[in-house]
Amino acid sequence: MIIIMKDNASAKEIVAVEKVLEEYGFKTHPIEGEKKTIIGAIGDKRQLSMNQILLMSGVENVVPIMKPYKLASKELQKEQSVIDVGYGVTVGGNKLAVFAGPCAIESQEQFTTVSRSVKEAGANILRGGAFKPRSSPYSFQGLEGEGLEIMYNSGKELGMPICTEVVDTRDVDLVAKYADIMQIGARNMQNFKLLREVGKTNKPILLKRGLASTMEEWLMAAEYIMSEGNENVILCERGIRTYETATRNTFDLSAIPVSKELSHLPIIADPSHATGSYKYVAPIAKGAIAAGADGLMIEVHNCPEKAASDGPQSLKPEKFNTLMKELDLIAKAVGRELL
Amino acid sequence: MIIIMKDNASAKEIVAVEKVLEEYGFKTHPIEGEKKTIIGAIGDKRQLSMNQILLMSGVENVVPIMKPYKLASKELQKEQSVIDVGYGVTVGGNKLAVFAGPCAIESQEQFTTVSRSVKEAGANILRGGAFKPRSSPYSFQGLEGEGLEIMYNSGKELGMPICTEVVDTRDVDLVAKYADIMQIGARNMQNFKLLREVGKTNKPILLKRGLASTMEEWLMAAEYIMSEGNENVILCERGIRTYETATRNTFDLSAIPVSKELSHLPIIADPSHATGSYKYVAPIAKGAIAAGADGLMIEVHNCPEKAASDGPQSLKPEKFNTLMKELDLIAKAVGRELL
Amino acid sequence: MIIIMKDNASAKEIVAVEKVLEEYGFKTHPIEGEKKTIIGAIGDKRQLSMNQILLMSGVENVVPIMKPYKLASKELQKEQSVIDVGYGVTVGGNKLAVFAGPCAIESQEQFTTVSRSVKEAGANILRGGAFKPRSSPYSFQGLEGEGLEIMYNSGKELGMPICTEVVDTRDVDLVAKYADIMQIGARNMQNFKLLREVGKTNKPILLKRGLASTMEEWLMAAEYIMSEGNENVILCERGIRTYETATRNTFDLSAIPVSKELSHLPIIADPSHATGSYKYVAPIAKGAIAAGADGLMIEVHNCPEKAASDGPQSLKPEKFNTLMKELDLIAKAVGRELL
Amino acid sequence: MIIIMKDNASAKEIVAVEKVLEEYGFKTHPIEGEKKTIIGAIGDKRQLSMNQILLMSGVENVVPIMKPYKLASKELQKEQSVIDVGYGVTVGGNKLAVFAGPCAIESQEQFTTVSRSVKEAGANILRGGAFKPRSSPYSFQGLEGEGLEIMYNSGKELGMPICTEVVDTRDVDLVAKYADIMQIGARNMQNFKLLREVGKTNKPILLKRGLASTMEEWLMAAEYIMSEGNENVILCERGIRTYETATRNTFDLSAIPVSKELSHLPIIADPSHATGSYKYVAPIAKGAIAAGADGLMIEVHNCPEKAASDGPQSLKPEKFNTLMKELDLIAKAVGRELL
Repeated sequence: MIIIMKDNASAKEIVAVEKVLEEYGFKTHPIEGEKKTIIGAIGDKRQLSMNQILLMSGVENVVPIMKPYKLASKELQKEQSVIDVGYGVTVGGNKLAVFAGPCAIESQEQFTTVSRSVKEAGANILRGGAFKPRSSPYSFQGLEGEGLEIMYNSGKELGMPICTEVVDTRDVDLVAKYADIMQIGARNMQNFKLLREVGKTNKPILLKRGLASTMEEWLMAAEYIMSEGNENVILCERGIRTYETATRNTFDLSAIPVSKELSHLPIIADPSHATGSYKYVAPIAKGAIAAGADGLMIEVHNCPEKAASDGPQSLKPEKFNTLMKELDLIAKAVGRELL
Repeated sequence: MIIIMKDNASAKEIVAVEKVLEEYGFKTHPIEGEKKTIIGAIGDKRQLSMNQILLMSGVENVVPIMKPYKLASKELQKEQSVIDVGYGVTVGGNKLAVFAGPCAIESQEQFTTVSRSVKEAGANILRGGAFKPRSSPYSFQGLEGEGLEIMYNSGKELGMPICTEVVDTRDVDLVAKYADIMQIGARNMQNFKLLREVGKTNKPILLKRGLASTMEEWLMAAEYIMSEGNENVILCERGIRTYETATRNTFDLSAIPVSKELSHLPIIADPSHATGSYKYVAPIAKGAIAAGADGLMIEVHNCPEKAASDGPQSLKPEKFNTLMKELDLIAKAVGRELL
Repeated sequence: MIIIMKDNASAKEIVAVEKVLEEYGFKTHPIEGEKKTIIGAIGDKRQLSMNQILLMSGVENVVPIMKPYKLASKELQKEQSVIDVGYGVTVGGNKLAVFAGPCAIESQEQFTTVSRSVKEAGANILRGGAFKPRSSPYSFQGLEGEGLEIMYNSGKELGMPICTEVVDTRDVDLVAKYADIMQIGARNMQNFKLLREVGKTNKPILLKRGLASTMEEWLMAAEYIMSEGNENVILCERGIRTYETATRNTFDLSAIPVSKELSHLPIIADPSHATGSYKYVAPIAKGAIAAGADGLMIEVHNCPEKAASDGPQSLKPEKFNTLMKELDLIAKAVGRELL
Repeated sequence: MIIIMKDNASAKEIVAVEKVLEEYGFKTHPIEGEKKTIIGAIGDKRQLSMNQILLMSGVENVVPIMKPYKLASKELQKEQSVIDVGYGVTVGGNKLAVFAGPCAIESQEQFTTVSRSVKEAGANILRGGAFKPRSSPYSFQGLEGEGLEIMYNSGKELGMPICTEVVDTRDVDLVAKYADIMQIGARNMQNFKLLREVGKTNKPILLKRGLASTMEEWLMAAEYIMSEGNENVILCERGIRTYETATRNTFDLSAIPVSKELSHLPIIADPSHATGSYKYVAPIAKGAIAAGADGLMIEVHNCPEKAASDGPQSLKPEKFNTLMKELDLIAKAVGRELL
């Protein structure tokens, strides 16, 4: 790390900072400028909080040099991770992953209908919500256990991995029993206890970006999961909160190349939650694939106007089918496979 | 609710919308403009999702008229809530509440030292973290159960209520056993399962505003707690995420008068987390009291440069003591009591 | 517009609001709900400020029904505008427009070198800055008049339209003499006097989105230009300000489909300013074309490390050349032409 | 500045960076860590763009050490500036400055009425808009020259300095002839040509913070004015753009202490534009004074429901009068004078 001293820092203050750094095993390299002294400090900063130095007399600022995440970074693993999610499907390889299904699971009949249609259109992973985080306590909260069984039946019938959200540490074991991929939703991205619990399982984790999380916080959330031993983390960009109200969130396309620069983890895009409107799902999905995403998560409902949750952002099966064909052309244009 | 039809909506589309509304028991009042028809619909919208209408052919937009929260609003209760938090202390009354203490509980000795000093300075509630949500899995995560006991001892010794955060549904019973006030942190503001669990206890809940939550989402989180039967919710503004990097978060002063306009719940301010720097704690604390806050939560540490967490935003006891005297003058200027 | 009265609004207050509305020629349609009365008002709201009603006793809110922009909307013109920018090049048609060149014009030699290379790679419009808005008064501010001549020479030599920014009402005539397309930069998007001045010329205007402007504000800025008689406005998404610091701005991909929904004006994307880093230009450019953008603006510099401005986001000519070939594949995949 | 090399930077790359730095007169101090080398560079960075180094092979990042503004910083002037604005009124001293008046000047009668009432209530500077930046081209744009005369008459009659906005470089001389203080509005904070023009006059400048400007950009805008020789700059916090919609903007209370930390320039607060609602003006005004603001700018209108602009945020004279008395108590509580 680098310690920037104040303009008028005294020699005594500079020595005091160096002394503390040395006590913690750092090698110090002071550099005297015309107005300021800066101190380069070489060592393992995990032993020492930057704050300790920041609060010392005469210190203006402390600049970290190393990234705070390790396992999620390219430091230890340079090549792209390819994650096996079951039934022969992978995320992160040349073939794109397409997670599709309704926002909420409403009944076996509804889920079977939608699942069959998305499979036919070319999706390779089923998605659906059994436990639903809803902003109102008066909204439908999901079928919970029953929903898990419904998904499980459809996954087995169609030979497709299923992905569903877990929202409570108490449910992790239950969800892990049914799901092939467990999802951590945007609102739980910094629910650290939940991250630790799913990190103790051996199921791949789909980690959605928090509503207003930075790339660094997102990779730190992945680090939480990975530090418990589960390295099968899939990132999912689903839009961030900004001042713009024309869409529900603002889809951050840059998250795709930036994550590829910083991490070996695969990343997919969720245009349904990012925009909140079925009208914008297709262009955002195409843009994400063109920019290098490893897959998509798209909400599909056979009757969006009767959906228990998030109808306005769901595609009807025939629109999803058309979109998959259009996406296939884009995938080929960037050297990937979709259908 | 009001349904705004598209410019070119046909008579058939308009009738279809009216029919669905009437099926759900709404009375409809179509108004034909030169370009557009709008439909006023009177009824209980909880039976019908706005989305159902929004997705119908010919519909441009649906505008809700009623607020989505009830218990947290002034609809059912107009007068300001005053919440009894134990040991004769209330939040929301004329006397201001001052929560003070270290970010993390590090040892009985540390907590006792800080607690005694903040009591002497005039604080009336002890705060401290036993379970710490930290952005890095490699940072100190709190003393957990041991920390609760330490707090409990100090509260009893000094005759002061204690407030501490709960981060996991599995810990709610344990924390409720020790704490007088349970805190829901910013990162868990939309951890709905946790909100429901604390809503089932009879302990007052300090509900921090989410990192990037709107006023409406915040009041909906309060509604989650209240809908389980626990109406003792205290709001806490702790800064929101914006593009500005000069402070860790941006303290939203308007949250104070806006919450007073929308809700009967008391609101306090946390200038320590809002700014991330001890240098800015005093001016923000003063501003909050002047603007009508019902209290403050301030981090105090006897040795901030050795704090296990958030040292840079902690005040030393002597600075806190001075600040309390300054705050007392402001409190008086707005007709409140502090010391 | 719709007037929502407060829960406890009196009959007298309701009548008073209706009376004012009727004075302004509105037809009023009160709807009495169980708790609230709402009033639908049909008429031309330009005669009456919503504020006048909003401040009347008993009024809770006023909801506008019509969009505030007309000329930029699809109300009067449904089909996509195709704008002729000279030398046989159009923006908004099936063939994509590619604006390329250096951030700042540094010399005839530099500009000639870059211009020739971008033409060879397939760009069809030259871009370059003669008047540079710089955040520091101590930074290079552009060659001004000399820069305009340099661009003009290159445009003529290569038979390509040139696009350059105008930053001062006093310079509009001068810039209009040389440029084929005049650019309004992000910082001037709400410099209304400048918008009016360029609206009085007959040159196509490239209107960059403001640093933190909503879609509506952006289209209102277009309306300013169009209301003076110049309807040749090209929108340019260049990233918005958010809390994320991994890129200089956050490229808002949704702006492309949203603008297509709301307006007939063509829209291009500027991945160079949106990201601030050459590393991310290619993926964002690809994503924008896949999502339906009508073109791109890309910074190219023969020697980015010596650029007078914005070097880190400039592509070297050979990288630009490769990118154009990749973009051509994406363009074809979405049914457009590039090369 | 500090240059952080990539993990795998070669000795050759390191030497190349040092060589360029030395060519520009920097003294270099390389520090070799276990994984990375960093290079401290001492010299005048105005000669060398950080970008030049940032783009060199093997360089990961460049960290500046010095602030980019000089005249606005405390480097050259440590004591608080006190700015004489005429008629014996100053901004930045112990006595608080209160700018009051209508958003737009509508007629001599209206302005005289409001001016007299605000003077009586204790305001010491008149504000009013003659040139109005409006988001719609169809809204009232101000009385322009006639408005300036109206203000001038009232200022002279009442012996009070007048403050009004200038929006076009072509109008600077005209406005300077009438106004005692010229205002640069939020939308023009980065209209650098306008900043330079007002910097050439000798009139105090009220510089509003841009809609989404950082503290650093704001101080750089002040630097633009000061670098032309006019050091009489008064900062004005008027709310920033965030995701929150409960208020028009989010008043950034921290801007007050942060500006005091970084700069010697006085700062006032504008609660009217910050909130957009008269209901929130009083609490924000009180909070700003308590936090250390040097004054306020408040919109007052004798008949807000008929105001040509921004009626909903204007106080009626009697409410303003009451507020001034309440503010006086807060001012005294923080050791300042108001009435």
